[in-house]
Amino acid sequence: MGEYFDRRLSELFNDYTTIVERRNEPQKGGNGIYERFIYPVLTREHIPVFWKYDLDEKTNPMLMERQGVNCVLNSGAIELNGKIHLVARVEGNDRKSFFAVAQSDNGIDQFKFWDYPIVMPETDDPDVNVYDMRVTKHEDGWLYGLFCTERKDPEAPAGDTSSAVAACGIARTKDLETWERLPDLKTRSPQQRNVVLHPEFVNGKYGLYTRPQDGFIETGKGGGIAWGLTDSMENACIDEEILMDCKEYHTIKEVKNGQGPAPIKTKKGWLHFAHGVRNTAAGLRYVVYAFLSDLEHPEVVTHRPGGFLIAPEGEERIGDVSNVIFCNGAVARESGELLIYYASSDTRMHVARTTVDKMLDYVLNTPEDPLKSYDCVQIRRKMIEKNLELIKTKVKL
Amino acid sequence: MGEYFDRRLSELFNDYTTIVERRNEPQKGGNGIYERFIYPVLTREHIPVFWKYDLDEKTNPMLMERQGVNCVLNSGAIELNGKIHLVARVEGNDRKSFFAVAQSDNGIDQFKFWDYPIVMPETDDPDVNVYDMRVTKHEDGWLYGLFCTERKDPEAPAGDTSSAVAACGIARTKDLETWERLPDLKTRSPQQRNVVLHPEFVNGKYGLYTRPQDGFIETGKGGGIAWGLTDSMENACIDEEILMDCKEYHTIKEVKNGQGPAPIKTKKGWLHFAHGVRNTAAGLRYVVYAFLSDLEHPEVVTHRPGGFLIAPEGEERIGDVSNVIFCNGAVARESGELLIYYASSDTRMHVARTTVDKMLDYVLNTPEDPLKSYDCVQIRRKMIEKNLELIKTKVKL
Repeated sequence: MGEYFDRRLSELFNDYTTIVERRNEPQKGGNGIYERFIYPVLTREHIPVFWKYDLDEKTNPMLMERQGVNCVLNSGAIELNGKIHLVARVEGNDRKSFFAVAQSDNGIDQFKFWDYPIVMPETDDPDVNVYDMRVTKHEDGWLYGLFCTERKDPEAPAGDTSSAVAACGIARTKDLETWERLPDLKTRSPQQRNVVLHPEFVNGKYGLYTRPQDGFIETGKGGGIAWGLTDSMENACIDEEILMDCKEYHTIKEVKNGQGPAPIKTKKGWLHFAHGVRNTAAGLRYVVYAFLSDLEHPEVVTHRPGGFLIAPEGEERIGDVSNVIFCNGAVARESGELLIYYASSDTRMHVARTTVDKMLDYVLNTPEDPLKSYDCVQIRRKMIEKNLELIKTKVKL
Repeated sequence: MGEYFDRRLSELFNDYTTIVERRNEPQKGGNGIYERFIYPVLTREHIPVFWKYDLDEKTNPMLMERQGVNCVLNSGAIELNGKIHLVARVEGNDRKSFFAVAQSDNGIDQFKFWDYPIVMPETDDPDVNVYDMRVTKHEDGWLYGLFCTERKDPEAPAGDTSSAVAACGIARTKDLETWERLPDLKTRSPQQRNVVLHPEFVNGKYGLYTRPQDGFIETGKGGGIAWGLTDSMENACIDEEILMDCKEYHTIKEVKNGQGPAPIKTKKGWLHFAHGVRNTAAGLRYVVYAFLSDLEHPEVVTHRPGGFLIAPEGEERIGDVSNVIFCNGAVARESGELLIYYASSDTRMHVARTTVDKMLDYVLNTPEDPLKSYDCVQIRRKMIEKNLELIKTKVKL
């Protein structure tokens, strides 16, 4: 090998190794509800060198990148064989996304991609883009991946190169490696995004969290997270969608919202993570919030802690699409540890670590949003008053 | 002189001198295609003190800034007398842009503005704003500057203070100092931006890269970079514009695109830099891409490497208009070195250093965008397969 090629090759592999072997540590401080970590868990620097560079000196003598990767974002998550697997959305420099599995022992560092990205089979109507997979381990024995499939709007007027149609793609697997593609979900809504499969049968049917929407970006009359049942996932079809968590004026979900990962079963109910969106002068702002729903009736929300659980902080604020936190993966481990995977600004993946008990405490005891300022102040003053009494009488500062 | 005035004056000049004498160094890492540098090459800190301050203690005893400069961005570039000259877009605090020449020996650091900004003569229809000059050394012996000239839309309804009309302004010079203004370009499109003069005659005519558009921001049916011919630059008029590089669904140029600097002649074809724009939830995202066109027929694109060449990174992501990389200047030097000048987030100028050979390797060997996710994965898997074989058999890691 030429000296230049040789040196550059070893630099590339060294840089990669440094990244994937790096240990992670919790950030200091925090709100006591969860811990953030000092490093993201997955970035484009985690992409193997051999995914980006043609390593053949004959065809790439200057060892230049041939197929760049722009970012790694909205990842599904699941524990298999005692290891944490993220099914990442990887976006090439050409803006097309695909899915790839990265694996870690502890779920907080040393994530490594498998040798190959996932080949997601197409339906008769080829996907232009696929992204944001939610992985559900269903009690029928399959692992399901539900994701957004996007195609150009066939009815877009001439010159309109942007209008698209978003639908729910469905695939299943036993091992995350080989995927069987099933027909896209049918509903009465013109478009669908953020569709998630509930892990258990409900009345012998498959339950799906949906987010009906009128247009590609605008949810329009599609008023929030909905719920529907289908007899089969092999020809998934929902006749009726019931709204279970609405978008609402002057909340963190004023413009739209959507279910995050499949909900987590706890002794008090199904624990949900979702994203809420509001508009600002600098574009949309995405945050993650949580709620709890009834064990028997997963579509009935029982507890709605007010406000966001995770909003962008520090470096998370900036990226390809700034001011975005998005979560479509979470894993509850046997130990009680709960790992919430979230992307920041459509650019990189982070983990927030908590426990199922802490999250239950959070959803059960955080006051619900009273929807107007005066009432917010009253609720806060009540707590302050109690605290000042405590401080006076008991707490040494 | 008063002590305060004296001290402040010397601080101002010292700070300026530190900036313009600072050496630049390549950033570590990178993709092997080009090098980024640790410092921008032109910022508002490079503006001479005497452009901003009235230095007369009698009229400005507190030595306050009188005519601030907000930013230095989208610069044309040309080598003259062995030195690199940037024809910068300088924007005052009042949002009006003007042109000014900054000069450097090596093109990567120590850029200094000439004593005066350029006086660009007006036509009978005065420009409200002028910006984004492309400088072309034409074989007719002139240096041409084509730029955007913007005026308020005379048909804007009452109360609409934003609607504007963008057209291509044309001027020529021998020395970048004295400019002769020529009539604006006439085409059949209601508006024009990003118009660039080809350096050579084509069939005895002047060739122009255009970007027809319906509205001031929206390109509408104006579908991309077009090409047209004019008999003369003294009354430039294009009858027919041929589309040569389209905007396209779910690519980095989904919403619009535009030619960057005048293309660079290489043994394999004309090397082009262009910008591509897509929409996001946080506003438009501008990246720079490259393509190659035929030597005899500059309007025929022969190679289209997929995806972006330069996208915002780190501090480049943030500025007056965040998430923007824009290039309207590049210089190929006799040594083979190729300097690509790009602005980040409408705020400052950077250089990316490569060679003509590397860029040819890039445009010839980077796979074209296959326009859908499945095919992207197939192309990448093919390279991965070959690499894994190589790693097994040859490469020691």
